[in-house]
Amino acid sequence: MRAQANGRPASSGIPEATVARLPVYLRALTALGESGLRTVSSEQLATAAGVNSAKLRKDLSYLGSYGTRGVGYDVEYLRYQIAREIGVNQDWAVVIVGIGNLGQALSNYGGFRSRGFRIVALVDGDASRVGEMHGDLAIAHIDELDRLVVERGCSIGVIATPGDAAQAVADRLVAAGVTSILNFAPAVLTVPEGVDVRKVDLSIELQILAYHEQRKRTPGADREGLPSEQVVES
Amino acid sequence: MRAQANGRPASSGIPEATVARLPVYLRALTALGESGLRTVSSEQLATAAGVNSAKLRKDLSYLGSYGTRGVGYDVEYLRYQIAREIGVNQDWAVVIVGIGNLGQALSNYGGFRSRGFRIVALVDGDASRVGEMHGDLAIAHIDELDRLVVERGCSIGVIATPGDAAQAVADRLVAAGVTSILNFAPAVLTVPEGVDVRKVDLSIELQILAYHEQRKRTPGADREGLPSEQVVES
Repeated sequence: MRAQANGRPASSGIPEATVARLPVYLRALTALGESGLRTVSSEQLATAAGVNSAKLRKDLSYLGSYGTRGVGYDVEYLRYQIAREIGVNQDWAVVIVGIGNLGQALSNYGGFRSRGFRIVALVDGDASRVGEMHGDLAIAHIDELDRLVVERGCSIGVIATPGDAAQAVADRLVAAGVTSILNFAPAVLTVPEGVDVRKVDLSIELQILAYHEQRKRTPGADREGLPSEQVVES
Repeated sequence: MRAQANGRPASSGIPEATVARLPVYLRALTALGESGLRTVSSEQLATAAGVNSAKLRKDLSYLGSYGTRGVGYDVEYLRYQIAREIGVNQDWAVVIVGIGNLGQALSNYGGFRSRGFRIVALVDGDASRVGEMHGDLAIAHIDELDRLVVERGCSIGVIATPGDAAQAVADRLVAAGVTSILNFAPAVLTVPEGVDVRKVDLSIELQILAYHEQRKRTPGADREGLPSEQVVES
């Protein structure tokens, strides 16, 4: 998250924090579109995405989308604009390294394919698992990684190995030409310039829940003045 | 994310966006502490957490932590303050419902236990899997859910079922007394007031990577003026 670290905008002039919200808007617009809505106000879309509407309007202004006064945004067109900006209109070939429970879960994850991410290779270090089928993919050995990345045009690698294997896998991915890594392993990765890494920490969301749970148990915690606790999922 | 939706602060007066960053600061402080650092400047901590230092100082001011001019923050004390604020000094009993690949991966996830989250029950709808051991827990049938939640004092439930089962599971969790739900299922859940839901969408991070990947491929994209692309993981 290079650009967020000092608040400077990313390469295209869109701040990192806005980039991180675009997929959330995209999901909200997809749901609104599926429910039959043709146009949406910034307030409606902001509520569906779980942000405030001023922030939403600011974010969309980076895309040159300002909506129409009194009408709002055209759902399909805004969806198209955001998808194009993120790049999910393209087809992204993804390799998953580490086919334990998490790697298997990720290989089956329906939310990837529907957003343009196609899992094209499954790789594991355990030779005894080579050839094991998951969907229409057979597990390949880690020694095949370079060849698979090149042959199948992978630019994105997902690391779902144990922590102590993650750096070596990252090095091999980078050497093979992968320039974006999604890291589920409990390890901090060092990568050369030009390679982006995002780390997923599944405990972060649990900690946010714990924060609110603790407040519910504290007699003095003031929950008045809050909007309905009915959750708007983002 | 009730409070974030309209920008109003959460019950304790800390804005939702700040709450969401506290676990990131906690992780950064833990890593800095393990590396032997006793005090840390706001700039160091901000870099380690991947935010800008003005935002960090603002966030910490909600906790009453202002650091010492010229010295910075005491790593251990700030870690303690944040952990207490989030509530991870407490012991949280968690039930996981849906013990497929993802549920199994979550039940083994080391990052939960180290943050105060203790998996105390594994529940699945498939009767043929009852009794299957994962670590020191046997899978129980979904019909046992109410009893287990009460007996083992679960306040947090994790849903890792297919999408079409998620709402029924959420209803049962809530009926049994669970007031915080972490939802990995591809479904939007409706829950009563007083219940918090956080949804994990594993494709969001991939979409953020795709955004940058697309920029790398676009010849006109201006990447000058950026800080080093060496990634500071947050």
